[in-house]
Amino acid sequence: MWRCAGGVMETPLNCAEEQQLPPPLPDSWSTVTPQEPTTDRKDKGNAVGFVLVHAGAGYHSESKAKEYKHVCKRACQRAVDRLKAGALAVDAVTAALVELEDSPFTNAGMGSNLNLSGEIECDASIMDGKSLHYGAVGAVSGINNPVLVANRLLSEAQKGKLSAGRIPPCFLVGRGAHDWAVSHGIPPCPSEKMATKFSLSAYKRNKHKMELAEKVETGFNHHSKKRRQASETENGSGLLDTVGAIVVDREGNVAAAVSSGGLAMKHPGRVGQAAHHGCGCWAENTSTLNPYSTAVSTSGCGEHLIRTMLARECSSAMQCEDAHQALLEAMQNKFISSPFLASEDCVLGGVIVLRCCRYSDAQPSADIQAILVEFLWSHTTESMCVGYMSAQDGKAKTHISRLPPGAVAGQSLAIEGGVCRLVSTVTTVD
Amino acid sequence: MWRCAGGVMETPLNCAEEQQLPPPLPDSWSTVTPQEPTTDRKDKGNAVGFVLVHAGAGYHSESKAKEYKHVCKRACQRAVDRLKAGALAVDAVTAALVELEDSPFTNAGMGSNLNLSGEIECDASIMDGKSLHYGAVGAVSGINNPVLVANRLLSEAQKGKLSAGRIPPCFLVGRGAHDWAVSHGIPPCPSEKMATKFSLSAYKRNKHKMELAEKVETGFNHHSKKRRQASETENGSGLLDTVGAIVVDREGNVAAAVSSGGLAMKHPGRVGQAAHHGCGCWAENTSTLNPYSTAVSTSGCGEHLIRTMLARECSSAMQCEDAHQALLEAMQNKFISSPFLASEDCVLGGVIVLRCCRYSDAQPSADIQAILVEFLWSHTTESMCVGYMSAQDGKAKTHISRLPPGAVAGQSLAIEGGVCRLVSTVTTVD
Repeated sequence: MWRCAGGVMETPLNCAEEQQLPPPLPDSWSTVTPQEPTTDRKDKGNAVGFVLVHAGAGYHSESKAKEYKHVCKRACQRAVDRLKAGALAVDAVTAALVELEDSPFTNAGMGSNLNLSGEIECDASIMDGKSLHYGAVGAVSGINNPVLVANRLLSEAQKGKLSAGRIPPCFLVGRGAHDWAVSHGIPPCPSEKMATKFSLSAYKRNKHKMELAEKVETGFNHHSKKRRQASETENGSGLLDTVGAIVVDREGNVAAAVSSGGLAMKHPGRVGQAAHHGCGCWAENTSTLNPYSTAVSTSGCGEHLIRTMLARECSSAMQCEDAHQALLEAMQNKFISSPFLASEDCVLGGVIVLRCCRYSDAQPSADIQAILVEFLWSHTTESMCVGYMSAQDGKAKTHISRLPPGAVAGQSLAIEGGVCRLVSTVTTVD
Repeated sequence: MWRCAGGVMETPLNCAEEQQLPPPLPDSWSTVTPQEPTTDRKDKGNAVGFVLVHAGAGYHSESKAKEYKHVCKRACQRAVDRLKAGALAVDAVTAALVELEDSPFTNAGMGSNLNLSGEIECDASIMDGKSLHYGAVGAVSGINNPVLVANRLLSEAQKGKLSAGRIPPCFLVGRGAHDWAVSHGIPPCPSEKMATKFSLSAYKRNKHKMELAEKVETGFNHHSKKRRQASETENGSGLLDTVGAIVVDREGNVAAAVSSGGLAMKHPGRVGQAAHHGCGCWAENTSTLNPYSTAVSTSGCGEHLIRTMLARECSSAMQCEDAHQALLEAMQNKFISSPFLASEDCVLGGVIVLRCCRYSDAQPSADIQAILVEFLWSHTTESMCVGYMSAQDGKAKTHISRLPPGAVAGQSLAIEGGVCRLVSTVTTVD
């Protein structure tokens, strides 16, 4: 069962009652009109770019919907502020992530899930579609903005080799990642300051559930090797609020990033998809092989997203003609029905994707550059919170996407999206 | 410039003077003849299976060639012993890796490269082509057989969820990985016992080179942001002896594994391709989508192998008709000329690959199962040490493959391989 809404995308044949006929200019469209030429690339009036963020695929209660939407809105605004200041996609996407990590409501940075030992260990990664470099940190403690470490790893790697011909790292974990970050000027944060009342009380509840579940297992079936799912931790019931963002800048460069505190009650040292190249995020500028620039960020059960390499799969699918159909097929065939997850009865995840290309039919002169951005989100979880904004918008649009009534989480999916036209004047700085 | 040898593969058009015309039964072929039916699956006479191992793509001096070949031989024998005892591919590949890790000459387990702090931190991963599960450890200290931890993560994940519905981890790093291993019965090993005279003296030399290089940089170009490659560490000059193995068992299941101590003088916490899903190894049994079962293990510069996801790319390429041509194109287009490595002037790596399928033309009766195995290795490094053996062979064949004279490491490649026919009787255990 599909839910589909808006945009230029074709409507799937089987979406029946959820179907909304594509309006000529749906609500989710952002249209940017060309501005007068300017000699300052940082000029606000000529700002061009687009950001799409997510505050996780999982379960977002109505009571907290407002908070989730609010943080998505702020994250979009942060990215747009950077784009307006002339920043490239990779910096704008980092700014969005910092805002998402700083929220105590998301499972990333501040307020992350606690692991089995009651500690916070975070994963984050970033990819630059222009250089195709990536940077990632896994299971890092004591850093409240892990995305800043990932970003710094990426930028350091782009500078070339270290002394004595050593190759700079693109992926650091644990204590080593923490020390590298601090030595590169990223401030540490005491772990106890990163935990919130909410994350601490969730930890206590989860620990109690685990103890109960283990008692039940021991009592009822002492010698059985088969594990029981006597009771679910709060991750099991859907709180997988990994965050992420994807951006296209005025030059048409794309970037993607993702950050996560990981599953609640995970084993110390566990690394999820957010630190895994190809699994947590992907960004690739257009090339001779690829007609579209693409960017993807994922959320959900890390192990499912790693085994399916969902970010890269979705990016690759986006090169097909019909973006909506391509994402729908990728989520169905490369995720829900993936042979890599054949043993799983419940496949939990969500993605935000965008693709863009230059187009000329709306260009009144050679000085005008126009970029067509198609953006989509899809999830198999109960809900997914997203926000999006172009650099010309006054404020971000936010949305909590939910599975259609009766759809089974982990087996069905929702898919929605829109289109945005970015138009800018081509100028040089005096 | 290509080097090519043996097998049923077509000879590339441009291999000129290195060309060897494919003989009807080249030296690298192993042909297993059918045996009399037996009622014991563990019967030695009916043992079927094949293993291909590598002791790293890098630079193997003539003086140490004997040692490298010897350890490859022993690793093949260990895998074949397990296959003869009725083990499946995933267990046989683990046995091969344990032998490779135990050698003080390889950069894996015992004798691994030391990092910047003089410590050993290892990466390893394993993939089972049957279940498509994988397990990995990164930057783990104090465990002399990291592949055993990867193998155990894989087998634990296959048992399903943990108590309270928690999803078992597939990737653990650092201290958490160490503690998980010990709690699952894998013995710890004091780090000082894992260092060898050779690795300690290499560390001292590297440290001295780094200090010299940094002095040169500081003295000559104090304010320059551009880094210099004043002198190379021993990794820079080609010692990248990551180890790996790929196996096909009597049932036609494939498995792959890889293990590495990582780059010399790496930053603590750095994780390389050996722990990275899709980058260090890959194994996929045949399916409705894939006519061949494929297995791949890589070696070389971890950052290059991660950014290109070389293991998965090569596995995917192996579904093409001509295995030799497919690997040659994959190494050229997806590695040497990869857009993901556009900024690199020297792309260092090597792969071992195999693919297999059932075939019927040599089957005298329905009781006979025949599997055709095509195996290849290719590298852009100076050399690569490989060994291979079928369960019917008396001993393993080993080979140090080298780039053709005049070829430039990091820009050219060598490619070689062979074919092996496995024939077994189909019986049931009484």
